[in-house]
Amino acid sequence: MNPVTFEITHVCKQSGARTGILHTPHGDVETPMFMPVGTQATVKFLSPEELYDLGAGVVLANTYHLWLRPGEEVLRKAGGVHKFMNYKGPMLTDSGGFQVFSLADTRKISEEGVTFKNVLNGDMLFLSPEKSIQIQNAIGADIMMSFDECIPYPATYEYAKDSMLRTLRWAERGKNANQRPDEQAIFGIVQGGDYEDLRHYSAEKLVEMDFPGYAIGGTSVGEDKETMYRMVAWSAENLPYDKPRYLMGVGAVNDLLEAVSLNIDMCDCVLPTRIARHGTLMTSHGRLNIRKAMYKEDFTPLDPECDCYCCRNYTKAYLNHLFRCDEGFGTRLMSIHNTRFLVRLMEDARRAIKADRFNDFKHEVLTNMKFDERGF
Amino acid sequence: MNPVTFEITHVCKQSGARTGILHTPHGDVETPMFMPVGTQATVKFLSPEELYDLGAGVVLANTYHLWLRPGEEVLRKAGGVHKFMNYKGPMLTDSGGFQVFSLADTRKISEEGVTFKNVLNGDMLFLSPEKSIQIQNAIGADIMMSFDECIPYPATYEYAKDSMLRTLRWAERGKNANQRPDEQAIFGIVQGGDYEDLRHYSAEKLVEMDFPGYAIGGTSVGEDKETMYRMVAWSAENLPYDKPRYLMGVGAVNDLLEAVSLNIDMCDCVLPTRIARHGTLMTSHGRLNIRKAMYKEDFTPLDPECDCYCCRNYTKAYLNHLFRCDEGFGTRLMSIHNTRFLVRLMEDARRAIKADRFNDFKHEVLTNMKFDERGF
Repeated sequence: MNPVTFEITHVCKQSGARTGILHTPHGDVETPMFMPVGTQATVKFLSPEELYDLGAGVVLANTYHLWLRPGEEVLRKAGGVHKFMNYKGPMLTDSGGFQVFSLADTRKISEEGVTFKNVLNGDMLFLSPEKSIQIQNAIGADIMMSFDECIPYPATYEYAKDSMLRTLRWAERGKNANQRPDEQAIFGIVQGGDYEDLRHYSAEKLVEMDFPGYAIGGTSVGEDKETMYRMVAWSAENLPYDKPRYLMGVGAVNDLLEAVSLNIDMCDCVLPTRIARHGTLMTSHGRLNIRKAMYKEDFTPLDPECDCYCCRNYTKAYLNHLFRCDEGFGTRLMSIHNTRFLVRLMEDARRAIKADRFNDFKHEVLTNMKFDERGF
Repeated sequence: MNPVTFEITHVCKQSGARTGILHTPHGDVETPMFMPVGTQATVKFLSPEELYDLGAGVVLANTYHLWLRPGEEVLRKAGGVHKFMNYKGPMLTDSGGFQVFSLADTRKISEEGVTFKNVLNGDMLFLSPEKSIQIQNAIGADIMMSFDECIPYPATYEYAKDSMLRTLRWAERGKNANQRPDEQAIFGIVQGGDYEDLRHYSAEKLVEMDFPGYAIGGTSVGEDKETMYRMVAWSAENLPYDKPRYLMGVGAVNDLLEAVSLNIDMCDCVLPTRIARHGTLMTSHGRLNIRKAMYKEDFTPLDPECDCYCCRNYTKAYLNHLFRCDEGFGTRLMSIHNTRFLVRLMEDARRAIKADRFNDFKHEVLTNMKFDERGF
């Protein structure tokens, strides 16, 4: 009995985009959805209650970071990350692969796994498909990810192919390593760089392994938007229509809407909380930089169309003051707003899909919100 | 009609300590009480809702800091600090004097006021009794403080006397400068260093000016505890019994209990939030340093006897993890706990006074909680 299942609830007559429900051991969530990132078992500055209040469904945690601190044993003894951080909704962990390849400076890849240096203390560590799943079993998220190699962009065809084939073998090994198959599902990750045949092959072989969901990896690694959308489309083409698809590391407005068009059901990104810490806000009138002197005496909300705790209760003048004074409460309020902005964008997308007008909605958002080409 | 009035509700038969109710334009609060400090119009990391939830009554804000940022004009246009920071309970502002004397490096005192350098940009600024009240009128707290000189310890008799006499003249000027006497009350501040006759004289003369409440200043400036308690006792002796007394800048457990014994009704301190940021917690079993490795796998609450949001929902292991990862949510949780700890200490003190057993209560706390001589 698979602990995570998916149900399609509507297909937009105008766009073909879909809404669905993801059933998990920690509750049902509607798709397409944006998932906030709680890297170290905390979505920076926010409480679980604030996450529920802003409509967060699935929350991510990072296997690599939690493995280093507090460590696998602590999480196992805590009874898993849900209890540890007191989040009662569904959770998802990545495989650690992305961080091993992007953060660790010394690493050696073999068929067995990856040896790399712990940046916190210089120790050599070894992560393999089995070890990744073992840690993820200790963390206990509803959805786990296969251990994959996230290759840089651009990469040669040969490198992309060898890596993708190894990632497929790793997926098989990880699948067999799951010690809690009734409580935790594993998603396979499509790789293959910017090569159509490799993306197709990767997806086909993963589908043969019959995962309850599929992720698309290796994007948002420096490629331009057009390349990214192409990689996503190639990856998705051969995935089973009735399984959830998760595009990893994407949170810009244009990318999210494009992903929905491509029948992606789940996206995650640190973007909303990271840019909030620098005073950059996403609003229904485009990007807003709260540092600007023009907001010092602006006693209106960040975004008059937003229903978040920050916009309901505080003014730009107060946020400008808190930001200038480097006050944590400012970061907290702006993180709430930006996260709610993306969660609400996806709520609106679902509404548009159900009204069979997702293409119109997408056009309206991209026209009216005036974000730049980065999508925020 | 005085906007702030005081009513004594019980006098402990065992100790003579008292409970009371302070009536303010933003609601009634019970005394004796501990008041958290929101220096820059935010109690660091906490929301107003969290302050209500932990039982905070009066919240402080600092005139000096708010004058520099966001400035008097912004606060006036915001409609005051209550609206600015969205706090609906009573508030109190200090006079700016303490910060001018402790933070500004270049300063010149004259009869008119104090000239000093703005540490943020090097500009020369001038603060006088009238200017302090003008800024405090813009901030709009329920209780304002007279502009005073907070002298260092030790100070010569001559210096302490001259300064105290000038502070009395400043008190008279500040009182006459209040533009919102129906909405904002001013408390006078007793000074006089470590000299009995000066403390008595200062209190007597302030009482002749008939303030609705009196503060005791010039303590917690480096003197030992015995000296401080002596200064407080001398200051309080000649104050009218039926007016509220506020001991400024005190938040250690032993100091708070001693203050209650001396018929002090209000205390404030940055202590609970400041030490929380360094991982130091006050608990019913004494001081606890969350950094310690022994807490890494301790899945019990910080303080099993505490009813705060942190203790109801999180473990020491999680707090240890958040602290080691420098996560703002950890600071937030520990600030909630420490503030609740002192607010609850005062709730328990009130209960003990009403049960005519405050001396027993004080003895029990000082014996059982095992804080060191610093009182935390």
